[in-house]
Amino acid sequence: MTDWKQAIETAAARIAPHLVVTPVVTVDGFGLGYPVEMKLEQLQHTGTFKARGAFNTLLASNVPAAGVVAASGGNHGAAAAYAARQLSYPAHIFVPEMAGPSKIALIRATGAELTVVPGQYANALEQAQAHEAKTGAMQIHAYDAELTVAGQGTLMREWEAQGLQADTVLIAVGGGGLIAGAMAWLQGSRRVVAVEPETSRALNAALEAGEPVDVEVSGVAANALGAKRIGTYCFDLARQTGAHSVLVSDEAITAAQTALWRERRLLVEPAGATALAALISGAYAPAPGEKVAVLVCGANIAPDPLG
Amino acid sequence: MTDWKQAIETAAARIAPHLVVTPVVTVDGFGLGYPVEMKLEQLQHTGTFKARGAFNTLLASNVPAAGVVAASGGNHGAAAAYAARQLSYPAHIFVPEMAGPSKIALIRATGAELTVVPGQYANALEQAQAHEAKTGAMQIHAYDAELTVAGQGTLMREWEAQGLQADTVLIAVGGGGLIAGAMAWLQGSRRVVAVEPETSRALNAALEAGEPVDVEVSGVAANALGAKRIGTYCFDLARQTGAHSVLVSDEAITAAQTALWRERRLLVEPAGATALAALISGAYAPAPGEKVAVLVCGANIAPDPLG
Repeated sequence: MTDWKQAIETAAARIAPHLVVTPVVTVDGFGLGYPVEMKLEQLQHTGTFKARGAFNTLLASNVPAAGVVAASGGNHGAAAAYAARQLSYPAHIFVPEMAGPSKIALIRATGAELTVVPGQYANALEQAQAHEAKTGAMQIHAYDAELTVAGQGTLMREWEAQGLQADTVLIAVGGGGLIAGAMAWLQGSRRVVAVEPETSRALNAALEAGEPVDVEVSGVAANALGAKRIGTYCFDLARQTGAHSVLVSDEAITAAQTALWRERRLLVEPAGATALAALISGAYAPAPGEKVAVLVCGANIAPDPLG
Repeated sequence: MTDWKQAIETAAARIAPHLVVTPVVTVDGFGLGYPVEMKLEQLQHTGTFKARGAFNTLLASNVPAAGVVAASGGNHGAAAAYAARQLSYPAHIFVPEMAGPSKIALIRATGAELTVVPGQYANALEQAQAHEAKTGAMQIHAYDAELTVAGQGTLMREWEAQGLQADTVLIAVGGGGLIAGAMAWLQGSRRVVAVEPETSRALNAALEAGEPVDVEVSGVAANALGAKRIGTYCFDLARQTGAHSVLVSDEAITAAQTALWRERRLLVEPAGATALAALISGAYAPAPGEKVAVLVCGANIAPDPLG
């Protein structure tokens, strides 16, 4: 069984030279009537937390001459391509069309080879696996691998070192890599609330079924949170540590995205506003005196506001 | 002579319950080859630092029954209106048309009375002064008043308390309230670089002439930085403490604005990117080993990226 604290400490030391220590801020607003601690992980390289897992994976591996391959809704692909470029490895990224222009532009900007695949994430993953089999390139999994989870876990370690006060941390969930890292680091020492769109509820459905099951995915956050099945690391950690699962509507996500911009001048993608949506919508209502924190995890919005 | 350290300490204690402690981050990027400390003051209420001076002025004053009046290119008006609303005073804000839709929407959202004046800032100021004379409302000056300068000075005090390392701090200048507050707090203990657009160079022209003089104003940052004449507090402090003055082109400002979004997912208005533009364009080139910091001061961009 993985010693997660050790794995995350090791990851943190390994990736530190390549990453931004993202800022934290406490805000009283959003019509809530109580303060919220926020970590602004959208300031990370390529606009999401994904660079943490990508660097940890590459730095811990013997990368073959064929380089790196990844399938992605966009954010993981951008991070994998960026990390590969920084470490001078070739990369080939497969994304579904729904990744959208801003995420595709981010990947192109790294100089990686890019294949846009008709259909959904599963179709991109299939082509990435074929590429891996043919070339011997190394696959970086977006969420369900120990090095990925340990890399994402460095975020919660960093937040605690920055003085996190919260009793409860709300985190958006797609495939579950980010929240798995947080649960792995915290080991139940703070409450973790997993927030998913009603239209992409892989963890929620798995907890209900008692095992990971396939779900249909759609909605405004689908290109970031639209995993058909929750990762096993996330599922196991959620059961072991007792994560709390809540769902939010697309309308609630859009309202939270609008509030972050209008009130705080933080422009984020729908997935980046999903955790906050649980507070604003009341899907998660803290008890009196309960201190809460929200992880803002991504800002690769389309269309590009600067065109 | 004002004891600025004391005035800023007093302001900080007075306004603390009403303001956000804005986050700081250190970033290695923008093609510079050296790290830059940034303070993200655009997360302040109403999207700029202006709320600091507005709250300090109102909390230190006996506000008349007629309430508050302000003339503004937009940002100061939004902050004055917000502060008045929070403190339950009526407010009437006069803005020139060039304030633009996002700043006008911010003011409207506070519930303040708003008059959009044809022409430039000077025309709005004239109407605000007429309103003051007629109603007895209290004028909050945008930059050239001691309480305003002391309020803006709380920003640099806060940044130092957050562990600012820089030898040199770059700050955008319009009327000079923000940089005056910084110079008043620092008293020469760090180098202050005043960055102005070539097309709105009120401080630069004043330093050249040996006294404040009128300049023509235009360009991409004009609705935030387009003061026709530098404030006397700023001018005096710049001479006393030896501030360094540099100019940047509109193209450099737009490039810095683009870089902040593309690289760091910080969407700011042109004025908010003006200080960084001095580094990216080379208008200010730090010596080897010189540690630099950039104040990101505003994000009231138009059009609204979320429509």
